[in-house]
Amino acid sequence: MQDSSAPVRFGILGAARIAAKVGPAIQAAENAEWVAIASRSREKADHWAKESSVPNAFGDYQALLDDPEIDAVYIPLPPSLHAEWTIKAAHAGKHVLCEKPLAHTIEDAQQMIAACRENNVQLMDGTMWFHHPRAASMSVRLQQGALGVVQRVTSAFTFRGSHAKDDYRNQRNLGGGAVFDLGWYCIGISLWAFDELPSKVFGSGVYADEVDKRFNGTLWFSDDRIATFDCGYQSAWRCWVEITGTEGSLVCDDFTRPRDEKKARFWFHDRVGSSEEFRAGKAHQETCMVEHFSRLIQTGQIESAWADASMRTLRV
Amino acid sequence: MQDSSAPVRFGILGAARIAAKVGPAIQAAENAEWVAIASRSREKADHWAKESSVPNAFGDYQALLDDPEIDAVYIPLPPSLHAEWTIKAAHAGKHVLCEKPLAHTIEDAQQMIAACRENNVQLMDGTMWFHHPRAASMSVRLQQGALGVVQRVTSAFTFRGSHAKDDYRNQRNLGGGAVFDLGWYCIGISLWAFDELPSKVFGSGVYADEVDKRFNGTLWFSDDRIATFDCGYQSAWRCWVEITGTEGSLVCDDFTRPRDEKKARFWFHDRVGSSEEFRAGKAHQETCMVEHFSRLIQTGQIESAWADASMRTLRV
Repeated sequence: MQDSSAPVRFGILGAARIAAKVGPAIQAAENAEWVAIASRSREKADHWAKESSVPNAFGDYQALLDDPEIDAVYIPLPPSLHAEWTIKAAHAGKHVLCEKPLAHTIEDAQQMIAACRENNVQLMDGTMWFHHPRAASMSVRLQQGALGVVQRVTSAFTFRGSHAKDDYRNQRNLGGGAVFDLGWYCIGISLWAFDELPSKVFGSGVYADEVDKRFNGTLWFSDDRIATFDCGYQSAWRCWVEITGTEGSLVCDDFTRPRDEKKARFWFHDRVGSSEEFRAGKAHQETCMVEHFSRLIQTGQIESAWADASMRTLRV
Repeated sequence: MQDSSAPVRFGILGAARIAAKVGPAIQAAENAEWVAIASRSREKADHWAKESSVPNAFGDYQALLDDPEIDAVYIPLPPSLHAEWTIKAAHAGKHVLCEKPLAHTIEDAQQMIAACRENNVQLMDGTMWFHHPRAASMSVRLQQGALGVVQRVTSAFTFRGSHAKDDYRNQRNLGGGAVFDLGWYCIGISLWAFDELPSKVFGSGVYADEVDKRFNGTLWFSDDRIATFDCGYQSAWRCWVEITGTEGSLVCDDFTRPRDEKKARFWFHDRVGSSEEFRAGKAHQETCMVEHFSRLIQTGQIESAWADASMRTLRV
């Protein structure tokens, strides 16, 4: 284990678009450093390393994992590759921040979690909104009982997506489809609000080119509590959640990411519908996530809760 | 038929709470007059008549219907009595503005519609929001294609309701229950947005004291379009609808009635989520409804579309 005051040294496996967001977040985090990037194309890795002032570039993923000067990896590969590279990273003793969905099957996820546990490394999926101070602020309202008994979560995450065949979202064998990509967030926030697994689930989707383009889901929880959501690539942009209880409701209209970092807001509506706006302080949620992940590593507090949350989302 | 310039003379059958809203609306309407009230209790009728400056009071409903100086009736009786009194009113040659739900069975509704048609009187249910200028403004956006292809309607209508046993909402034999009371609006706006009947419906509810206290519904329309809603008496106040298309979405957070008459608003969100607020002019929707209903009578343009809309909602 490294010195707890030293920054966590990150390598990134794969030059995916999302890495262009998380890479700079690692650089911005006060307790992390971006020290290496790997791509199957050496040329691409070199280009990214140069562009982003990253000291080391690798032409294959295993070479990066073999580097003893790296503490943790961020895995933005297509979902179908998550299990393989998370397990390899764990065996190499690297902590793993893996893009969501963690995996597409329960078996894969179980193996990933087991490998990380055996090697005493942290596993966390890349669902960022949990780490934004807004989530903590919403959580406080829930914990304080401002909503009374939470009875229902309604959410939606849609946008007009790329029809490009080479986007992994449109390829089943790479792990595409709306439920795993966008529904992941809707399911995640529903479980977060209810803090339990549903007893029954129901869904219907619209399929094209092998993957679900639109999906509607209903989750039933204990005591007749319910969550419904819709997600997909064929509708205008929407990204909202409403959590409703006996005493009030909480609404956030950009829950996976504040549209404006300076205005990370949500609303509380009381029992008779009067509204109050809450604002969280300015924050960059990728940076919050990296800092949180790195803090767990620095302090040696490997937490299984984060992997458990991914697992619960996947079970649904 | 009456002179087209004379105001329509209304009688109200029953001294229900809602009559305290619609009665004054009839008085405020520029083309209507509230001339009579009937209650099973003569005393109650007299009291209301005096309180509201209504010239005539009747101790039974039929006596009001027999008065030739009355052109139209408003029926705020419990739903289980709607069919009987609408049909009797039609036979007496009175136009009928009947509180929603129009009826609880298709057979009842068909008989009500047939009786009104045979007697050439207007039948309209008391769903008010259709008549507010905001509905016309929302309709313009839909008609203009601002939303592209409408794919989904999500809505909710809940409040913490009265647990009083004598409230008809809590009595099955009076036609109570959340779906017929509140779901009526959610279903109504879904059909309004899609302008067709669903091909499939699914619902689940929480029952107590014989009636549904909470209900979740899903309606499937052609081309994989879908509507979901929840309604009930056990959650904090919510009354919103979101209509989503390929190019934008439209949100109204008090769709059955503007919380503030001076701020009857809704929002349009474009394809990438940028928001624009629209405001309709100040209007009192009960008055809008009465004026619209009365105008149809004054001009002799008996319309079946309003009864058809009720019928479609009921079929669902």
